[in-house]
Amino acid sequence: MAAVKLQIGVAGLGRMGKRHALNFLQNVPRASLVAVSTPDADERQWAKENLAPHGVTVYEKYADLLSHQGLSAVCVASATAVHAEQAIAAIAAGKHVLCEKPLGISVDISQTVVDAAAARPDLKVMCGFSRRFDASYRDAYSKMQSGMIGRPSVLRSQTCDVLDPSGFFVAYAEFSGGIFVDCSIHDIDLALWFFGEDAKVRSVHAVGITAVEPDLRKYNDRDNAVGVVEFNDGRIAYLYASRMMAAGQEDATEIIGTKGKLTVNMVPTENHVRIYQPGGIRHELPQNYWGRFRAAFTTEAIEFTDSVLNDTPVPVKLESAVTAVRIGAALQKSMITGEKIVFDESGSEGDRARL
Amino acid sequence: MAAVKLQIGVAGLGRMGKRHALNFLQNVPRASLVAVSTPDADERQWAKENLAPHGVTVYEKYADLLSHQGLSAVCVASATAVHAEQAIAAIAAGKHVLCEKPLGISVDISQTVVDAAAARPDLKVMCGFSRRFDASYRDAYSKMQSGMIGRPSVLRSQTCDVLDPSGFFVAYAEFSGGIFVDCSIHDIDLALWFFGEDAKVRSVHAVGITAVEPDLRKYNDRDNAVGVVEFNDGRIAYLYASRMMAAGQEDATEIIGTKGKLTVNMVPTENHVRIYQPGGIRHELPQNYWGRFRAAFTTEAIEFTDSVLNDTPVPVKLESAVTAVRIGAALQKSMITGEKIVFDESGSEGDRARL
Amino acid sequence: MAAVKLQIGVAGLGRMGKRHALNFLQNVPRASLVAVSTPDADERQWAKENLAPHGVTVYEKYADLLSHQGLSAVCVASATAVHAEQAIAAIAAGKHVLCEKPLGISVDISQTVVDAAAARPDLKVMCGFSRRFDASYRDAYSKMQSGMIGRPSVLRSQTCDVLDPSGFFVAYAEFSGGIFVDCSIHDIDLALWFFGEDAKVRSVHAVGITAVEPDLRKYNDRDNAVGVVEFNDGRIAYLYASRMMAAGQEDATEIIGTKGKLTVNMVPTENHVRIYQPGGIRHELPQNYWGRFRAAFTTEAIEFTDSVLNDTPVPVKLESAVTAVRIGAALQKSMITGEKIVFDESGSEGDRARL
Amino acid sequence: MAAVKLQIGVAGLGRMGKRHALNFLQNVPRASLVAVSTPDADERQWAKENLAPHGVTVYEKYADLLSHQGLSAVCVASATAVHAEQAIAAIAAGKHVLCEKPLGISVDISQTVVDAAAARPDLKVMCGFSRRFDASYRDAYSKMQSGMIGRPSVLRSQTCDVLDPSGFFVAYAEFSGGIFVDCSIHDIDLALWFFGEDAKVRSVHAVGITAVEPDLRKYNDRDNAVGVVEFNDGRIAYLYASRMMAAGQEDATEIIGTKGKLTVNMVPTENHVRIYQPGGIRHELPQNYWGRFRAAFTTEAIEFTDSVLNDTPVPVKLESAVTAVRIGAALQKSMITGEKIVFDESGSEGDRARL
Repeated sequence: MAAVKLQIGVAGLGRMGKRHALNFLQNVPRASLVAVSTPDADERQWAKENLAPHGVTVYEKYADLLSHQGLSAVCVASATAVHAEQAIAAIAAGKHVLCEKPLGISVDISQTVVDAAAARPDLKVMCGFSRRFDASYRDAYSKMQSGMIGRPSVLRSQTCDVLDPSGFFVAYAEFSGGIFVDCSIHDIDLALWFFGEDAKVRSVHAVGITAVEPDLRKYNDRDNAVGVVEFNDGRIAYLYASRMMAAGQEDATEIIGTKGKLTVNMVPTENHVRIYQPGGIRHELPQNYWGRFRAAFTTEAIEFTDSVLNDTPVPVKLESAVTAVRIGAALQKSMITGEKIVFDESGSEGDRARL
Repeated sequence: MAAVKLQIGVAGLGRMGKRHALNFLQNVPRASLVAVSTPDADERQWAKENLAPHGVTVYEKYADLLSHQGLSAVCVASATAVHAEQAIAAIAAGKHVLCEKPLGISVDISQTVVDAAAARPDLKVMCGFSRRFDASYRDAYSKMQSGMIGRPSVLRSQTCDVLDPSGFFVAYAEFSGGIFVDCSIHDIDLALWFFGEDAKVRSVHAVGITAVEPDLRKYNDRDNAVGVVEFNDGRIAYLYASRMMAAGQEDATEIIGTKGKLTVNMVPTENHVRIYQPGGIRHELPQNYWGRFRAAFTTEAIEFTDSVLNDTPVPVKLESAVTAVRIGAALQKSMITGEKIVFDESGSEGDRARL
Repeated sequence: MAAVKLQIGVAGLGRMGKRHALNFLQNVPRASLVAVSTPDADERQWAKENLAPHGVTVYEKYADLLSHQGLSAVCVASATAVHAEQAIAAIAAGKHVLCEKPLGISVDISQTVVDAAAARPDLKVMCGFSRRFDASYRDAYSKMQSGMIGRPSVLRSQTCDVLDPSGFFVAYAEFSGGIFVDCSIHDIDLALWFFGEDAKVRSVHAVGITAVEPDLRKYNDRDNAVGVVEFNDGRIAYLYASRMMAAGQEDATEIIGTKGKLTVNMVPTENHVRIYQPGGIRHELPQNYWGRFRAAFTTEAIEFTDSVLNDTPVPVKLESAVTAVRIGAALQKSMITGEKIVFDESGSEGDRARL
Repeated sequence: MAAVKLQIGVAGLGRMGKRHALNFLQNVPRASLVAVSTPDADERQWAKENLAPHGVTVYEKYADLLSHQGLSAVCVASATAVHAEQAIAAIAAGKHVLCEKPLGISVDISQTVVDAAAARPDLKVMCGFSRRFDASYRDAYSKMQSGMIGRPSVLRSQTCDVLDPSGFFVAYAEFSGGIFVDCSIHDIDLALWFFGEDAKVRSVHAVGITAVEPDLRKYNDRDNAVGVVEFNDGRIAYLYASRMMAAGQEDATEIIGTKGKLTVNMVPTENHVRIYQPGGIRHELPQNYWGRFRAAFTTEAIEFTDSVLNDTPVPVKLESAVTAVRIGAALQKSMITGEKIVFDESGSEGDRARL
């Protein structure tokens, strides 16, 4: 008896695309990776060597991927700038979509995906906020829900990458939406998750510096940034993002409640090994986001696959991805202008007078 | 293009057997679980509900499993007492074998499996020492091999289970070979791995108590035991095993070298969550061996599958499993008799005079 | 040979005053506690029982303490509201002064102490920022100075007290200057220390909530607050203060540099004990500020005594205490008004237009 | 009012003697260090520079120290070989005695001190087992006493020094009594403390190696040793001592009970600082015994002083120090002979037949 499998394709084979492709190929029993597409010749060569031997068709054009015989779903893992248009094209072609975060670098672009999805309620469309699938974050969420810490009131969260000495992230900044939309989007999504999707933002304020890469300024970006988000119901999220960590990927979160506190990954560790040498006791860290969240990406792919095959709701609401971009973009704007930004009751950016 | 997969069956569906079966079903892309067998009606019922829907045939008799059409390999996960005979029967039937540890509760029984395997060099036969497949142990081994700690000289290792208030382990003790053969076998295997497979034992000595379960004495077993193993080349391994941990599974290892030390899992943790409440900061632990080593069992299954499909040597030499039983059984004997046991140059138990 | 000792008196015997008095009595070999003063009858009774037997004179009036025969120095540990006037009176009487933080709840009041001290360069006047005397903070500072983390660029620091269920802190808030002046002053001082005393503030912004004690609002205070301080030279300090911790005192600091990071007390611990019980592994925390910094207060008292007896500069510049209040008061104002506050080049509060 | 102070002298100004002298000089308010003695000219020179300016008389001969006008007590911190004779001479001279561990390198020698003390019940005579004064060990003991871990059944403890590349410890080994009497004596004392002073030893067994210093063999010593102590009431202590740690002083203890476990210093730390650099997160360790137990030595000195001035019993029974040497010497003998040593009911070494 051969079980029905989800025929899925991956669009984009950059750093994240390769990982998504291998993930669907190796770790998702109910999915079959059947095709990939990328405009980049080197990436196609990689696919020919690593994916084609397992029966995966390699396309140059995304449109051809969408036309692949039997394809049911697409994982959009291309550059942020084309997330939205590729997701919308897939929906138009009747494919289920797992889209890498963010949906787009602006609220308007992100909203177009939500609108397209709303028109096709038969399709599963999900934005991949990987931390929602991480075992530790889920454990913390479940403990909070059980009342263990009283009312969650303050959330501190950070997304901090190792310094990439190649400076790749400067060029990348031109299209990433900036450090708050690219990195802190995860922390913002955590705030929405832990405080409740309907939490309304009252104000945002952010500051940033270029400690290691002054060239980021030409793209209105920074390499270290701190943001503060006030919610209307008397809660605060404060965020830190950095691109210059020395030791490894440092993504940590504290959820502080009226009766206790939960932390996730306060002291990052790669594994259970400790090294004793002159100078002290040392342990290693994951060196990048994938190293920390590899298992979460697998769970994400498995659960997306299940929601399609079982026709159940996707585990993360799509609208939430727009709210996250709204907050991230406002923080980015505050950081660049130096202005605190306040929102009115409806959740739109208001004027200072309202305060 | 459909890749060739290893058709494998699992014998025994007790606690570990169920886990092995699900592991091969879900996590090993190159293997297909095609059949299982167990004499236990409840276990067969479980299999009918959980495995049969995925196309797995359920047998009562092991002989029928071996006769399953197209079967290439067997995972022996039955009671320790039948490990050897089932492994030998599988070899006789021309099947590759992945056998749960230990091969048998005595050296002689264990050796019969090695002998049977030696007669069929075309078959892959491996004893599953799961820690050899754990990412942290592998990282520690690799760091040791790189010279990071000088010459490894002392190894401390423990296998400590949570107290099972049902007292199941008392009945289990009758056939387990005792705490050193059942639990410490892992630590002994680590010593052989880290000190080198050809390390020769000079003496063993052990003591034990029944702190929580005096009934263990009727099976010549204890619930807490400490053993010391001297090697001829000036190295020491000292071991602790317990069945009464309160907090969780505590399997820890230190490898102490002339220039440094490596530890694995000195302070066990379930995940990245920490809980702050009145009374302090707390974290949870895995509650059993599987919880700690789940990923290692998957790696073990994947690598065994690869060694069969690729016709490469299995990652753990079978002879090593006999040596581990030899040391474990001697420690068990020392614990019960109160005598230190010395080995002569050939590795056989000698007399005290030799010292 | 009897060594000359510093004859010191302590003004105020509230929670901190008692500790300072006992500290000078027991732990400072070169100082003699000769007298104390407090207007509170209960506190005087305590002093009669605990200090008088060791030869300490107990006064009701501060003026009498200042007139105590042979007195050379005063430790001002009274209510914040009288810090400045008592310090100035001591200076006028020709006494050296160790004053508890803050000098005053406003910049102007704090400055009066600095002015009085400037007029008497023969006297040692120091504001007690206890963390500057903590072994861990000093170790971190020294490592930073050695270049270990490159250029320090971002400082995260928090002062978080255990929830006091008596609600004492509400009444206390009326005169404390608010959470930023009372608690975060320590973190602000750390920023000035680690970034350099001459770091100029560019802007501050803060938000706060009353998660457990709404009554704080009548004194324009909050029980949880987040503040962000931008410095002109491209550095950021961001701060968190709370009065509702469940597990214990949580004072932690991160100093993030371009080549590394140093943390102090990221996971607070009381001692070296870990408790393994069902539910996990747990450790306790200091329950208050004194529990965490007891040894630092002793070092502070010893070093202040040494600076007087040896006629060397006090280890912490007095002017720094005014700058800390300036920043703390601005954060408090920002939290209450909702306005971001910018400073002009001279370090005075400017207008928004400047940005 | 000048309080009465204990006039104390320190005999021996080697590594530990210097520390004891400075400890009494600086940290014990109720004691006055009035004199010291040492036959070593360099040590006397150090004393003239560091102690004499504070009014401390420096003697060459111990007899002269004992004759110092007004002396009430002596701290014996000389070489282990003369501990007993100096302690006895002090008792004969009517002085209270705080003697560094061990009382002697043999049971017989140690017993002579107990006998001498028994004849002078008016004098306080204590052997300085510093860990009994450590805040963490005391906390663990108190938690165990409260029933938190059920019945303590297994104790693991280690005393592990940093490798001294000068090889000083080889010469030192000639007179130290060996690694079990010199280092493990602390762990043995902990077993007696935590299991109860009246716990009777049933057997001991030990093994040792010379991993870094083969020359130790000429003094019948080893640089790494593992010992196992069985108690008659069904408890086990197992010990590890080493002189080759790379990272720092590693003195750790686990007390394992039927309902829980307590650990002390499982991952040694110097302070609250963590260092993040390429390669991971690191923390430093105390580099020697004093670094780890400095505060405990101060508490020990304060409590010894209090017991003399208040005429209360000393906090550690003197007889316990003989029992510790008895066990340590037996372990040392077992390590060298290779024989397991059993004790008869009276606690004397018996013969193997008894088992």
